[in-house]
Amino acid sequence: MNDPLTTLAGTLDTVWHHLERGTVQRDAPARHPVLATAGPAGAEARMVVLRAAGRIDDRIEVYADRRSAKVGELASEPRASLLVWDPAQRLQIRLRARFQVLAGETVAALWEALPGPARALYGGRPAPGTPISGPGDHIADPAAHAFCVLRGALSEIETLHLATLGHRRALFRAADGWRGQWCAP
Amino acid sequence: MNDPLTTLAGTLDTVWHHLERGTVQRDAPARHPVLATAGPAGAEARMVVLRAAGRIDDRIEVYADRRSAKVGELASEPRASLLVWDPAQRLQIRLRARFQVLAGETVAALWEALPGPARALYGGRPAPGTPISGPGDHIADPAAHAFCVLRGALSEIETLHLATLGHRRALFRAADGWRGQWCAP
Repeated sequence: MNDPLTTLAGTLDTVWHHLERGTVQRDAPARHPVLATAGPAGAEARMVVLRAAGRIDDRIEVYADRRSAKVGELASEPRASLLVWDPAQRLQIRLRARFQVLAGETVAALWEALPGPARALYGGRPAPGTPISGPGDHIADPAAHAFCVLRGALSEIETLHLATLGHRRALFRAADGWRGQWCAP
Repeated sequence: MNDPLTTLAGTLDTVWHHLERGTVQRDAPARHPVLATAGPAGAEARMVVLRAAGRIDDRIEVYADRRSAKVGELASEPRASLLVWDPAQRLQIRLRARFQVLAGETVAALWEALPGPARALYGGRPAPGTPISGPGDHIADPAAHAFCVLRGALSEIETLHLATLGHRRALFRAADGWRGQWCAP
């Protein structure tokens, strides 16, 4: 049987295949994960764009407007999760990571590399979440100083494969070299 | 223009239309929202099945195994979020709710109404998340005492519509009678 999801090593390879595709392919399942953060009024969730994923350094990256709520939430509680669902494989991928917020000179090259329409997502007026009288009362104003990178250092990857012959759940941890462990689903 | 997402009332109606479809239609976008909770090691996220949604009483319901991590997380921090994404409308729906965990006699009728295959998701051995030596080392053992209902009382609904002519964000709150307010995206 060649299904990679029947082994721990094959499962972890599948996760990284998804993450790497997500950073380059617009319609890949991992292109738009859900980022969950712990906010002052409980847990928050929103979709984000996966911008980078590095297996060598256990790293994932998402971009944000520095004034958005998620940036403040990660400053208070840097431990957050990303969730990816691949409907074709019926595979759920949960990533746990500790995030740093990088801005200014450190990320200037990434800002320069962004195409114009993508830059318009950072720096509009008023700031994200501000009440406005109508949906048109928002002005795009691309600004490098409003741009930041949420860089996550992965600590755990948990998969759940909804297989016809029984669900399979696995947990991989940086602390044990990503060896992996099957768990009850 | 008949696009309901151009008005606050139409946007809220669209949200409820999605939630109501999600409870009955297997391929509806709101069938499988992401539930974000605040856990002891930061925010957690996983997909769930939307089982009930009531506009009259601002209520949503999800089923769970009482021994699963999310139940413990909601007991410590009942304020959590559900996220729905409709790719056709390019509409993100964020629901904020305070959850109670209902079990035993209170939910016996819901347990009785569950078809056999659905019951098999609650009560297997060992408990969810327990390390096992292989993915087959898990025995289904449907048990009413392992079944619980996560009932969420909605406090806020936030929408983000990725429209070609400018993104539209709106916030609706139970506290002001769900009147709604446009916000900067």
